[in-house]
Amino acid sequence: MHSRAVRERGNTTKRNRLHPAQVVVSGFALTILVGTALLMLPNARVGPGAASFLEALFTATSAVCVTGLTVVDTAVYWTPFGQIVILFLIQIGGFGIMSFASVVGLAIARKLSLRSRMTAAAETKSVGLEDVKGLVVGVVRISLAIEATVALMLALRFMIGYGEPVGRAVWLGVFHSVSSFNNAGFALFSDNLMGYATDAWICLPICAAVILGGLGFPVIVQLRRQLRAQVRQPFRWSIRTWTMNTRIVIAGTIVLLVLGTAYITAVEWSNPNTLGPLGWPGKLLVGFFQAVQTRTAGFNSVDIAQLDSATLLGMDVLMLIGGGPAGTAGGIKITTFAVLFFILWTEVRGQVAVNVFGKRLSRAVHREAITIALLAVGVIITATAVLMLMTDISLDALLFETISAFATVGLSTGITAGLPWGGQVILILLMFIGRLGPITFASAIALRERHATYELPKERPIIG
Amino acid sequence: MHSRAVRERGNTTKRNRLHPAQVVVSGFALTILVGTALLMLPNARVGPGAASFLEALFTATSAVCVTGLTVVDTAVYWTPFGQIVILFLIQIGGFGIMSFASVVGLAIARKLSLRSRMTAAAETKSVGLEDVKGLVVGVVRISLAIEATVALMLALRFMIGYGEPVGRAVWLGVFHSVSSFNNAGFALFSDNLMGYATDAWICLPICAAVILGGLGFPVIVQLRRQLRAQVRQPFRWSIRTWTMNTRIVIAGTIVLLVLGTAYITAVEWSNPNTLGPLGWPGKLLVGFFQAVQTRTAGFNSVDIAQLDSATLLGMDVLMLIGGGPAGTAGGIKITTFAVLFFILWTEVRGQVAVNVFGKRLSRAVHREAITIALLAVGVIITATAVLMLMTDISLDALLFETISAFATVGLSTGITAGLPWGGQVILILLMFIGRLGPITFASAIALRERHATYELPKERPIIG
Ligand SMILES: [K+]
Ligand SMILES: [K+]
Repeated sequence: MHSRAVRERGNTTKRNRLHPAQVVVSGFALTILVGTALLMLPNARVGPGAASFLEALFTATSAVCVTGLTVVDTAVYWTPFGQIVILFLIQIGGFGIMSFASVVGLAIARKLSLRSRMTAAAETKSVGLEDVKGLVVGVVRISLAIEATVALMLALRFMIGYGEPVGRAVWLGVFHSVSSFNNAGFALFSDNLMGYATDAWICLPICAAVILGGLGFPVIVQLRRQLRAQVRQPFRWSIRTWTMNTRIVIAGTIVLLVLGTAYITAVEWSNPNTLGPLGWPGKLLVGFFQAVQTRTAGFNSVDIAQLDSATLLGMDVLMLIGGGPAGTAGGIKITTFAVLFFILWTEVRGQVAVNVFGKRLSRAVHREAITIALLAVGVIITATAVLMLMTDISLDALLFETISAFATVGLSTGITAGLPWGGQVILILLMFIGRLGPITFASAIALRERHATYELPKERPIIG
Repeated sequence: MHSRAVRERGNTTKRNRLHPAQVVVSGFALTILVGTALLMLPNARVGPGAASFLEALFTATSAVCVTGLTVVDTAVYWTPFGQIVILFLIQIGGFGIMSFASVVGLAIARKLSLRSRMTAAAETKSVGLEDVKGLVVGVVRISLAIEATVALMLALRFMIGYGEPVGRAVWLGVFHSVSSFNNAGFALFSDNLMGYATDAWICLPICAAVILGGLGFPVIVQLRRQLRAQVRQPFRWSIRTWTMNTRIVIAGTIVLLVLGTAYITAVEWSNPNTLGPLGWPGKLLVGFFQAVQTRTAGFNSVDIAQLDSATLLGMDVLMLIGGGPAGTAGGIKITTFAVLFFILWTEVRGQVAVNVFGKRLSRAVHREAITIALLAVGVIITATAVLMLMTDISLDALLFETISAFATVGLSTGITAGLPWGGQVILILLMFIGRLGPITFASAIALRERHATYELPKERPIIG
């Protein structure tokens, strides 16, 4: 009955399929180091002396990983030069992750479609340099177009509404637009965006940029194609060509935004330190803004430290789920969560196959999703436990901080700067792992060649 | 590309396969109500008047669901009559869950073996009354044998070591033995077992009963068979006949006990309010004891409220995982967690099939395990958020309390009695759902007949 534990081994291909991941991880690390060096220059910091290595490393990592956690006040600690460095680090990080994820997505799609078509031209399996170039150009063009639009709207508002001179208004517009689309959450105000909590002209364009960036590049491309088709044929509206990825991301984004807004607004409705003093349009605007930002961007228009702990717990869930894949969003991604949810739903309804929007969900994806979710939860719990041993801060605040770092959100109850250096190093590692871990790991799983030599007899334990 | 969302439906069988679950859920509810009524009798409570409905309901639910959370002090609030009621409720709850889970396990095994043998004698599919009777008799015999042994050891110690008169020593022995084997965690001392923290003769028999009860009935039966075989042939030691369930539960129990003991002992080593004052044998004994109890029994020999919050977080994980299926343990069960872990491990190693101890893990189990784990986490987070809205208690203590209730552990940082009545009702619901939910739900999933009419085209979203 019991056969010896001889097991098949997955042969990782010899055709260097993992190179893109290695390139990107090294590229991110190198960018962070260069950013750290630049931020340590004396003219990056206001006042005498230079930023410490840890301050610079933390800020550079937070910028490149588009997280937005800070140990110093971006608005007053860094000079305009320092802020420009941060801006570039954010933009490079955003381009980098979108391009990398899109290339990987293309490679996976190629591999799978080849396998199903049973054509064996090995060279077409790998993604050519031409494809990569095309993708990167696409990423850059779309990003810049959206960023320019939002920057213009913000700059106009800063001029008209707040009397800023043109130069400063444009700078504010560009910085916050780039920070928004790349879901970075860095702001040039000491209280982040709390000063503009009820200014819809500031908040809504930022939300639009955040949501678009968080959908992920493949979804943006498909939406753009759809938009063009609608322009040509305005009365033939159809989403038949949408991929399962696009459907899940769009539906998931809508559901999470509606639920998030409802939850945050309801819980905080009469909290005197947050939504309490506002009228109901203000409550709704701030609630919506915070629901949007929590999913990964990390701006805040209320004081996070004043939120009810039930709100923080709900935000933990939103942060962990995050946004769409192959974009600037963090977290385990909507798609990963959706796969787990659809599996649950299938079991509850007693169906045979996991069907999602009229397609059957590939079985290999089940195990990928479990793996990513479990690893994420494991990393977060481990980091939280270590931080608890280091400090006397409450679970509330520490869990929020670690999830915020891992999911590259950047919201904080205000404990970041006060953590011991070991704690800040843990956050740096969490940001890096959270930014590159899921995509690198998931793509390694999906791209690996697997060869089963033979099947073992089947058995099952008791569940539940 | 997109086919209309016509889906197959799982036909729940018409042969009333779900009846055992309905019987057991009603049986548990009825037992709780009868217990509540008995505990509300004036002679169940010390002092004038009777226990309130909520106190009695909470206590009865906690006893029948073998949880051990209390809103009143078991040692001084209840009369000997009240304590006997609690003892019987624990024993009925323990017998009930073990018998039910074993019958369900048998039914699942029958169904699967029939399916694989392709014989279609429908009547043998269902579990006959004879089988049920045999199982229940087995459960009762094994339970009483173990309980009697442990009761004897404890009674002797209470007589010899603490000078208790025979009658009281036997009563203490019987109560704590039954409470241990059924993983209930009720104690007849106001400080639970803190007074016996360094008494190995009290602690180790209790640990043995707890561990055995937590293995689950199928594993106990297999171990007993093994033991008999060893007695006949002492030199032919082999575990070849062990089922995957037994292997996972035994291996998982050892791993969790070792890791749990190491973690708790290390973190609390120099905590002046817990292990600090003890010598190293005492530290190890208390650390081991608490690791054993945390997995589901819920006795405590240190003050839980004094533990480091990092220890509490580690205990949250242990509690959520719980013990073996078809036993008195709670939680999502070792097997459920192990399935998720083995899936992760398979992906990390790039293997094709999830192989566990030389057998291939049935694919249907993947989805069951995800479903149980997700539902458990969802229930716990929801309950925690609601309790946060009701009270000002920290996340630390509330999360510990909800996991303890759901996983029927019964450990508490001491907040149970002080919760508002709504909060106590939530804990009552958590205990009931935590006790019956996973087994009922998992068995419903596993026993349901599924018919796929046709397969939809396959697609996959981007993960990570
Ligand atoms: K961010
Ligand atoms: K218990």
